[in-house]
Amino acid sequence: MDGHSHPTTGRPLCSDASLSPCLRRYSEVRAATLHHAAPLSAEDMVVQSMTDASPAKWHLAHTSWFFETFLLSPRSGYAPFDPHYGYLFNSYYEAKGARQPRAQRGILTRPALSDILAYRQYVDHHIRDLITAGLDAESEALLALGLAHEEQHQELLLMDILHLFSLSPLAPAYDPAFAADAPVGETRFLACSGGLVEIGATGGGFAFDNERPRHKVWLEPYQIADRLVRNGDWMAFMHDGGYARPELWLSDGWAHVQVEGWRAPLYWRLDGDRWQEFSLRGLHPVDPDAPVTHISFYEADAFARWAGARLPTEAEWELAARQNGLQQVDDVAWQWTNSAYLGYPGFRPGAGAVGEYNGKFMSGQMTLRGGSAFTPAGHARLTYRNFFAPEKRWVRASLRLARDHA
Amino acid sequence: MDGHSHPTTGRPLCSDASLSPCLRRYSEVRAATLHHAAPLSAEDMVVQSMTDASPAKWHLAHTSWFFETFLLSPRSGYAPFDPHYGYLFNSYYEAKGARQPRAQRGILTRPALSDILAYRQYVDHHIRDLITAGLDAESEALLALGLAHEEQHQELLLMDILHLFSLSPLAPAYDPAFAADAPVGETRFLACSGGLVEIGATGGGFAFDNERPRHKVWLEPYQIADRLVRNGDWMAFMHDGGYARPELWLSDGWAHVQVEGWRAPLYWRLDGDRWQEFSLRGLHPVDPDAPVTHISFYEADAFARWAGARLPTEAEWELAARQNGLQQVDDVAWQWTNSAYLGYPGFRPGAGAVGEYNGKFMSGQMTLRGGSAFTPAGHARLTYRNFFAPEKRWVRASLRLARDHA
Amino acid sequence: MDGHSHPTTGRPLCSDASLSPCLRRYSEVRAATLHHAAPLSAEDMVVQSMTDASPAKWHLAHTSWFFETFLLSPRSGYAPFDPHYGYLFNSYYEAKGARQPRAQRGILTRPALSDILAYRQYVDHHIRDLITAGLDAESEALLALGLAHEEQHQELLLMDILHLFSLSPLAPAYDPAFAADAPVGETRFLACSGGLVEIGATGGGFAFDNERPRHKVWLEPYQIADRLVRNGDWMAFMHDGGYARPELWLSDGWAHVQVEGWRAPLYWRLDGDRWQEFSLRGLHPVDPDAPVTHISFYEADAFARWAGARLPTEAEWELAARQNGLQQVDDVAWQWTNSAYLGYPGFRPGAGAVGEYNGKFMSGQMTLRGGSAFTPAGHARLTYRNFFAPEKRWVRASLRLARDHA
Amino acid sequence: MDGHSHPTTGRPLCSDASLSPCLRRYSEVRAATLHHAAPLSAEDMVVQSMTDASPAKWHLAHTSWFFETFLLSPRSGYAPFDPHYGYLFNSYYEAKGARQPRAQRGILTRPALSDILAYRQYVDHHIRDLITAGLDAESEALLALGLAHEEQHQELLLMDILHLFSLSPLAPAYDPAFAADAPVGETRFLACSGGLVEIGATGGGFAFDNERPRHKVWLEPYQIADRLVRNGDWMAFMHDGGYARPELWLSDGWAHVQVEGWRAPLYWRLDGDRWQEFSLRGLHPVDPDAPVTHISFYEADAFARWAGARLPTEAEWELAARQNGLQQVDDVAWQWTNSAYLGYPGFRPGAGAVGEYNGKFMSGQMTLRGGSAFTPAGHARLTYRNFFAPEKRWVRASLRLARDHA
Ligand SMILES: [Fe+3]
Ligand SMILES: [Fe+3]
Ligand SMILES: [Fe+3]
Ligand SMILES: [Fe+3]
Repeated sequence: MDGHSHPTTGRPLCSDASLSPCLRRYSEVRAATLHHAAPLSAEDMVVQSMTDASPAKWHLAHTSWFFETFLLSPRSGYAPFDPHYGYLFNSYYEAKGARQPRAQRGILTRPALSDILAYRQYVDHHIRDLITAGLDAESEALLALGLAHEEQHQELLLMDILHLFSLSPLAPAYDPAFAADAPVGETRFLACSGGLVEIGATGGGFAFDNERPRHKVWLEPYQIADRLVRNGDWMAFMHDGGYARPELWLSDGWAHVQVEGWRAPLYWRLDGDRWQEFSLRGLHPVDPDAPVTHISFYEADAFARWAGARLPTEAEWELAARQNGLQQVDDVAWQWTNSAYLGYPGFRPGAGAVGEYNGKFMSGQMTLRGGSAFTPAGHARLTYRNFFAPEKRWVRASLRLARDHA
Repeated sequence: MDGHSHPTTGRPLCSDASLSPCLRRYSEVRAATLHHAAPLSAEDMVVQSMTDASPAKWHLAHTSWFFETFLLSPRSGYAPFDPHYGYLFNSYYEAKGARQPRAQRGILTRPALSDILAYRQYVDHHIRDLITAGLDAESEALLALGLAHEEQHQELLLMDILHLFSLSPLAPAYDPAFAADAPVGETRFLACSGGLVEIGATGGGFAFDNERPRHKVWLEPYQIADRLVRNGDWMAFMHDGGYARPELWLSDGWAHVQVEGWRAPLYWRLDGDRWQEFSLRGLHPVDPDAPVTHISFYEADAFARWAGARLPTEAEWELAARQNGLQQVDDVAWQWTNSAYLGYPGFRPGAGAVGEYNGKFMSGQMTLRGGSAFTPAGHARLTYRNFFAPEKRWVRASLRLARDHA
Repeated sequence: MDGHSHPTTGRPLCSDASLSPCLRRYSEVRAATLHHAAPLSAEDMVVQSMTDASPAKWHLAHTSWFFETFLLSPRSGYAPFDPHYGYLFNSYYEAKGARQPRAQRGILTRPALSDILAYRQYVDHHIRDLITAGLDAESEALLALGLAHEEQHQELLLMDILHLFSLSPLAPAYDPAFAADAPVGETRFLACSGGLVEIGATGGGFAFDNERPRHKVWLEPYQIADRLVRNGDWMAFMHDGGYARPELWLSDGWAHVQVEGWRAPLYWRLDGDRWQEFSLRGLHPVDPDAPVTHISFYEADAFARWAGARLPTEAEWELAARQNGLQQVDDVAWQWTNSAYLGYPGFRPGAGAVGEYNGKFMSGQMTLRGGSAFTPAGHARLTYRNFFAPEKRWVRASLRLARDHA
Repeated sequence: MDGHSHPTTGRPLCSDASLSPCLRRYSEVRAATLHHAAPLSAEDMVVQSMTDASPAKWHLAHTSWFFETFLLSPRSGYAPFDPHYGYLFNSYYEAKGARQPRAQRGILTRPALSDILAYRQYVDHHIRDLITAGLDAESEALLALGLAHEEQHQELLLMDILHLFSLSPLAPAYDPAFAADAPVGETRFLACSGGLVEIGATGGGFAFDNERPRHKVWLEPYQIADRLVRNGDWMAFMHDGGYARPELWLSDGWAHVQVEGWRAPLYWRLDGDRWQEFSLRGLHPVDPDAPVTHISFYEADAFARWAGARLPTEAEWELAARQNGLQQVDDVAWQWTNSAYLGYPGFRPGAGAVGEYNGKFMSGQMTLRGGSAFTPAGHARLTYRNFFAPEKRWVRASLRLARDHA
């Protein structure tokens, strides 16, 4: 995900009568980003651990660039904080011109963290003025988009730091008190009757463009697990030769197993004969009752095949989440579906540069649903479509099984 | 495609009462393969031009290996033609053991072409005996699969030879008399009302497993072009900066444009200020009225966006082909859809090793529909699902536009 | 160079009668390293710009690791500062065990710079105690080696920072007051009569193992330039098609020109129609009278061929430097020779792990002679052998022409 | 080697009084090439097994191109056999224009082998006319060069076919009767006193430019083995952990060991617990008394270090070969030296395009001396300088140990 999603319409957040909720939400989101960065040193925040990841400092700057570019710069009289930043902190918006190559975000030792913090304050000051002066509907929509965008980068910041720290021989903890995932009990399969249903965002509140339009889908009857697959289940898969049996794998997945030597979830490490897991709270034994996390789509798919099940489609997931008693919907880990990330029937990307937000990533990726322990509270929705390439493992992703109605 | 598709059931082709049609079809398919190879020298047939392609000699051998492996070897008393061939000519069947690495198919100067021709005769002899002795339903299904498989490799052989010859500074013609594509008139959009429709293969005749089960799909009203996009249309796209405007492209497609320097369809070459096209009949001027061919999904998608249209989904294509007056359905070029190649609801791969035929390729690819001038007559069906990765250009692929109902 | 060189014998530096010179030199060298780092922030010091380069923080730590590993750890009772550092800061000493992969030195945001500074103090404290207690000859030699090693890393630190900053769109200056190279006048060729001469280090003072043994070499009469090639000369080469004429280049060099798009020295940039150069003092116009720097061996060799000259051999360079009035011997830039970096006749690497210091790099590299503006004063010698692969350009290297006696 | 070497002067081979020896030598060399190709099918001769290697058909054509380009085409009235061949069969002569990329020599299924054989006859016809008409000194030198060149390609043809066949699971023999290497007895070291000696080609006969000028070299006293290292010796090295002990290896060599998984000479294969070797006569047990072959410079160097010896320099080798009773000088395998392939003092490449023959490869390679069982009889000389990059293993190379005088 960096490819995210833009809103078409939204709840009035910043109408005249409600300035303070609007200011409050802006302040809370911006403060939360800094809170995520608080355990990190300037050194921690400058390094890029792989092309997929970005330095924490870059996340801090890019989220500010988003507000500056789409809300401030179009206004006459606004003086950009620094004319270089448009180049340095544009992620992928071709309509906004050339940019620092993604793989080279980590050489930006300058501007310093202190400069970026000043940039954030500068942007905050101007955005607050804008809110106070009153926003038209388009600006309000862009503000809501900017805030959702910043929340997405909060999750990315945690994913990226975890990846960076996982490479360190010192195995540093981001936060030793970061909450562990709660144990999960036995899974039950819930029956869904299917039929002609509707999925996707309704007109009401904020949603990204890729969640719209709401549309009809025909579903055959199916069953879906009420909770996520656990580490202990995953160990059983491993002990049964899960990573050594090509018949369980998609062809491209099996190629990854062999070339990259996958033998366990990304952050598991064998210590003698005990599996340890590296997480934001450091290195600790794998809890067999906690949900498995940091697996690719290919691994999720292979596990499901081994288990005599399959992954749900997006529509199956969304319907079940709306109707049934699913647990661990959005507070533990994103859940791979067997749906490719494509536009819904009638999909229209937003106008202007923000039209690049989601639509241009609609190839080569699989959709994930739900939300994760890294996702800001209240950020996700049941219609939310997250997406990553099927081999990515640094996402906080798990799986929920489904199967055809017996 | 070398991922193809296996049949679950089929018309009785080889029942006792109809031995001669069965023998005749077997002989015709096998002879057609040799006919495809007839313009080629032994030298032409040994070389592999890229990892995606295979030597013509390898196609001749592998299609025989398929019959030997799935129909002959399981029978007691059958002596394999050569014990090495199981290794040399297995394509990707993990259940059938280790195999010559795909990228190394071109180093097999031995066995000689004459050995492979003898292998074909040996297999033909034994298969004919088998047919004459009478086939049970399972063997008959495998025979039908083997014949469909061989027909797929006939198309691959032409694709691969065209690619090989396209690399030669001599630009040799495969067959100077190979038929040129007929000119296309102006496109009209046909209206389809959609609704709750069914797609996929019915129980009746031969179909690959990936065409099943027939299932319900909800479709919004749409329009679909009655014919394919033409070279002249493509030139207009090029002249309008089609390959230079990132806003027209999916993000992954744009990366390919830049890294691989795409500026025109794969086999177009600028000769002074005139575009030439290399085809099986050699190098000749691009005919602006003929359908554009040898474009990737990314290019098709970008063109459609430029044209204010989109690609149809698989279901839209199949419904329109069944109901309407589509032209150029299966005799010119495969048609990229905007559907990812995934299993249909309730999809079950075949039992045993042939279960690897299609199912394990269900990630990372897009579906194409129709058929091409390289496809053997009668091979394709309206429910047929061809599939390739979105950047592949050596497929004989074109595009048919669609759009939402106004 | 990170492959350096170890001493076999040396001037008594730390004998009982001269403790204070020994302590003084140790303190000066260690302080100079910190002085080199002074203009840098912690963020600047953590990033690795390419595999060849190392983060400044890593240089600070690794030089301390060298003293700790070879002088302190062998002594009973010494407690390492941190047991992880042996892994983190070993460069390439196989005899000292596993180590952080070279390409991953830049992910070490931890240990923090403050930790490394404390590490330096800890090592300094123990080394000073050791010196004060008196060193035996072997330890004294290792101390001298450690100091020469640290001086080498001072130069590497500057090379690496220049490379890192050169990638930044902000083009930050390391030190705006860093001295510019003085202009050079017209070159004169000096005649050397050659004959049976001796080169290499004599027994007297400190020298690396690769400078020994002193040995006889037969030289034909030759001529050598009294100074380095200038930027203005280089521009003439460029204007004469120097980077576009394969006949001027070694085959491997021409391949680099084409694949990497070399068009000018590494740090030159075309600004409109004026060439700018990026150096430690920032971006500034190229001075046509200053020596050319940051060119590869391939470029030096091509320039020499274009100029109707050649590069000198090591022996020619050393003899001329000893006998003649060469200018810019060691204060501007290292000078590529046409000698491959191989052991001298009778070469013996030092005993133990320090035997890996130089000898194991004796393949694939060319020798450079002299010294550079980045080299600590007093570090180099006329017998000093620097070495890099022929395509490396981030070395502060230039060239001095030679030719056969007319 | 494809980089070879051109002659400056030579014995009168084709003077008026001796037409028939000249014609005879031309005919013999040309026939020998065809003789080398005789065991091969057209299929065997079209495939390129790696970028370093060329198809046998390409060797047949390129050697003819050499005569055509340098001897026939400059003459008015000569009509080239085919205007495409200048592009197709130029190896690396930039002065002769663009050419088929080296890595793409294997896609040339056309022109057919029969075309190439006709090309050879056409060139032969014209060259014989030229000889009969009488050659000036320059043409005679070019003819001698063309013949030496063709002999070099005879060796390359065998090397390349061996490499191609070694990749085949069928392990086909090029010639089951190809002579095995004779067993070697115990090695003795011969003493050489060194001093101021001369090496390099004298004015008399044919020699490549890189063998000239003859020049003085100072040599310290040394010892050199009278014969090559044997397979049994190599097994002892392997059993002593030779491929697992980094202290025995140059740094770049050790990197190759790890990345490419070197565990034995290139063509050795472990069959159960017995080592087999693949050679031109097929697969057979390793003969412990035969010389080791198909090792890289890095392996030779590591073995020598393990044996407490070193490789000889070029000058040491040449002096010993001239003075002493060396065995296996040029009839078994080329012998790696510890000399980099650089120009001799006063080296001048030939005038015109043939100046590219040798000189432009003078970087990144090591020199080999002697000759091999693949080298045509009479081709090599004691002054002959063969050269390959230090990691190449498909050369028929072995090693002869040397050491400093005790
Ligand atoms: Fe973003
Ligand atoms: Fe197949
Ligand atoms: Fe070092
Ligand atoms: Fe050649």
